Amino acid sequence: MTKNELKYYSSLLKKKYRNKEKKFIVEGLKSVEEGINSKYKCEKIFVSNNFLESSESKNILKKKNIDILKLSDFLKLTDTVNPQGIAAVFEIPEKKNIAEINSDIIIYLDNISDPGNLGTIIRNCDWFGFTTLLISGNSVDVYNPKVVRTTMGSIFHLEIIDDVQTHSLIILKNSGYKIFCADTEGNSINNFKIKEKSIITFSNEAAGPSDELLNISDYKITIPSKGNAESLNVAVAASIILYEISK
Amino acid sequence: MTKNELKYYSSLLKKKYRNKEKKFIVEGLKSVEEGINSKYKCEKIFVSNNFLESSESKNILKKKNIDILKLSDFLKLTDTVNPQGIAAVFEIPEKKNIAEINSDIIIYLDNISDPGNLGTIIRNCDWFGFTTLLISGNSVDVYNPKVVRTTMGSIFHLEIIDDVQTHSLIILKNSGYKIFCADTEGNSINNFKIKEKSIITFSNEAAGPSDELLNISDYKITIPSKGNAESLNVAVAASIILYEISK
Repeated sequence: MTKNELKYYSSLLKKKYRNKEKKFIVEGLKSVEEGINSKYKCEKIFVSNNFLESSESKNILKKKNIDILKLSDFLKLTDTVNPQGIAAVFEIPEKKNIAEINSDIIIYLDNISDPGNLGTIIRNCDWFGFTTLLISGNSVDVYNPKVVRTTMGSIFHLEIIDDVQTHSLIILKNSGYKIFCADTEGNSINNFKIKEKSIITFSNEAAGPSDELLNISDYKITIPSKGNAESLNVAVAASIILYEISK
Repeated sequence: MTKNELKYYSSLLKKKYRNKEKKFIVEGLKSVEEGINSKYKCEKIFVSNNFLESSESKNILKKKNIDILKLSDFLKLTDTVNPQGIAAVFEIPEKKNIAEINSDIIIYLDNISDPGNLGTIIRNCDWFGFTTLLISGNSVDVYNPKVVRTTMGSIFHLEIIDDVQTHSLIILKNSGYKIFCADTEGNSINNFKIKEKSIITFSNEAAGPSDELLNISDYKITIPSKGNAESLNVAVAASIILYEISK
């Protein structure tokens, strides 16, 4: 690989270049495997010398007809300190139009700022079988390397529409969806049952739901506390609500 | 503060010195406030110049009769990049003896290695009102700065016994506790009810429960999946199980 190629691919660690090139980097064996077995298009796989010598390398590298490059300067393609030595570049798929959504339950993320939280929520959605995820434009970029890594491959299993604005939620609401807004106060989700087409929303870690979102919400839902903690982490709260709805 | 004093306090960022001195550092306004309002003994509060000028400083600094030091070199006392500018040193309390435990439900953590996970589980326990937490000797140190920060003050609300060995669990089992081991397979926790004195265990992020723990467990419990993710993050899994038990 030439210096310029390495520069090109490592630029994809930044949002600006991901948006421009419509590509993103995935790091780690499990995530790369999930990616090449998904409908996402893989452009290239990069491996370190150490990875090539490992026993795991054999299965993955024979699987598909994808360019594989050995890279001595592997750290340039990752933001982790101890990478596994395998990464891949995937194309960012075309976004579905809001009008094409036909899931009964949609998850909406409102201004989620922490990459670990966004990645964990994607993993949670995948675990509980919620496959349609909308992400607001002011949330952290879903193709951010830490987000992708934290999803543990689940990013490839969901239908994700990012950069969503409130008016898209209003369109869905007008087409018959009810909006359930997770908040620190509201109706308890104990034995919560959803019987209609619904959007479940989770909001910013510190600020909670925006006024814009509250204004269009039909119900506020909450997880009752029995102790002294002031709040739950948003990825934890999302997991509990998704668990309860999935029952 | 002299150079030697700064060196002494910043050494508490390391486990070796925390163990020797029986003290730990807490960073951030919310956590320091929770600490000084708890039964934990606060030795000193450190503030940056910027913090002193902030409006938040007034309430906390008048509250108790605690030494407050202004510190120009605040970054030496924290492992965060953008600290809030307030930290405090607390004494590590004497550990309760296993025989003194009288909670009906005990949470046991088996080889939890990620500080964020341990901190989040402590916050979860506090939210759902589970106040007795045992932590295995091979887990990350509970007084690690990132663990403490992630608990958001909840570390001060629980009865925590760390460095717990399996034989302590056996003593509890012999005194009438049943052991429920969270695992990737087992009985579904949907509508799970606990009617007896119980220990709920959560295990290492990658390896799962140790054979030692499995050997003494009475039941294996799991969270049913409806999607394609391979697993849930352990702090997420713990939150869902604690939620279900707390109902």
